[in-house]
Amino acid sequence: MVLVGTRNPLNIGAAARALNNFGFRRLRLVNPYQVAYQEARSAVHAHEILESAEEYQTLADAVADCTLVVGTTSLGHRELQHPLRTLEYGGRLLRKHLVSGRVALLFGSEKFGLSNDDLSYCHWLVRIGTQGSMNLGQAVAVCMYELTRKAAAPKPEKRRPASADDLDRLTERLTEVLALSGYVHSAGTEAKIRRLVRRLDLPAHDAEVWLGMLRQIQWKLKREEPKR
Amino acid sequence: MVLVGTRNPLNIGAAARALNNFGFRRLRLVNPYQVAYQEARSAVHAHEILESAEEYQTLADAVADCTLVVGTTSLGHRELQHPLRTLEYGGRLLRKHLVSGRVALLFGSEKFGLSNDDLSYCHWLVRIGTQGSMNLGQAVAVCMYELTRKAAAPKPEKRRPASADDLDRLTERLTEVLALSGYVHSAGTEAKIRRLVRRLDLPAHDAEVWLGMLRQIQWKLKREEPKR
Repeated sequence: MVLVGTRNPLNIGAAARALNNFGFRRLRLVNPYQVAYQEARSAVHAHEILESAEEYQTLADAVADCTLVVGTTSLGHRELQHPLRTLEYGGRLLRKHLVSGRVALLFGSEKFGLSNDDLSYCHWLVRIGTQGSMNLGQAVAVCMYELTRKAAAPKPEKRRPASADDLDRLTERLTEVLALSGYVHSAGTEAKIRRLVRRLDLPAHDAEVWLGMLRQIQWKLKREEPKR
Repeated sequence: MVLVGTRNPLNIGAAARALNNFGFRRLRLVNPYQVAYQEARSAVHAHEILESAEEYQTLADAVADCTLVVGTTSLGHRELQHPLRTLEYGGRLLRKHLVSGRVALLFGSEKFGLSNDDLSYCHWLVRIGTQGSMNLGQAVAVCMYELTRKAAAPKPEKRRPASADDLDRLTERLTEVLALSGYVHSAGTEAKIRRLVRRLDLPAHDAEVWLGMLRQIQWKLKREEPKR
């Protein structure tokens, strides 16, 4: 990640933190405001990424060893000479490129963004589809998230679902409890209860807990019963 | 979005800004540190979202009209009672739900995250797969980005899910029935029951049916009670 002309030390720190959060390590700064840079480095929570950050006088030097240079922009109102891609689509291209090459992702100054001269070093641009411009640290975090996101392959749920047998026992017990408590029986009640229990989407462990509860309620209802 | 116990006014401001950037409008705060809240509201760049933010004393009130309540967590080291989903996968479920229902996405305090009691109001949790905990504003930005990502437009769910309010009534009634039947009370039983009910993934109509059953069982248990 390359920060160009960043002014606010808090933003430099936030960008470094976001970089680290998503497992990236290399931060380069082009012409940072010296006061901001020193302040960011000396902050109590300054990240080690800041300590190993490299400083450059020109953007050309900062990206010299990269095989893909992509600029970020918040708004499309400039006359752009570059392909402008959504972060969703651009992110996919970046991930692909990251496998084999070194990518520089550029963030401009908080006030002016990247200059036309900066942009001339870019292969293309990405835009985060937001309303209004984003806080620098947040923009960095969102980009790093997109670069590391895994295709939404859902992980298997860890919880073991209740078996049909569990659900049958639950249905049976519930039917008995309802009968004891005088819940109105209409035609097909049992099937209704069975469907109702099926729709609960219970994990096996929870099914046991519910069974225990019903057992207790049933015991109580039965104990009271003979006194009449 | 619901911020629970947020301490830092800059973070409240950053969260509001991220919310706005991605086109969301509703911000609710539960027990914010008053100093921070007032400071955030009076900041020069305070966003109008902060002016229309709603403040609540309890999380239960803040999410009462929501049909899906999802907590965010940075680390999985706690013993979690909830399904824990990646933001990529959870985001897809959230987008789907947003088409037809109202979702509450919870962010805990900077220092402690969401408490176990807060978590008991959640249907499930999402985790942003980062190393170390994220800055609050950045976490919000990343989540909002994922929620607004364009993907194949999900179909709306046909069945209307139960609201948090429905689930609270169910939890309350069940707790009463269990007390009447002598079900063993241990520390934290109520929170346990709240989580148990949350995991049922109930449609609104089914919630009514279960409430009716519990009402009948309770009536029966009470009628027998005075005879002793």
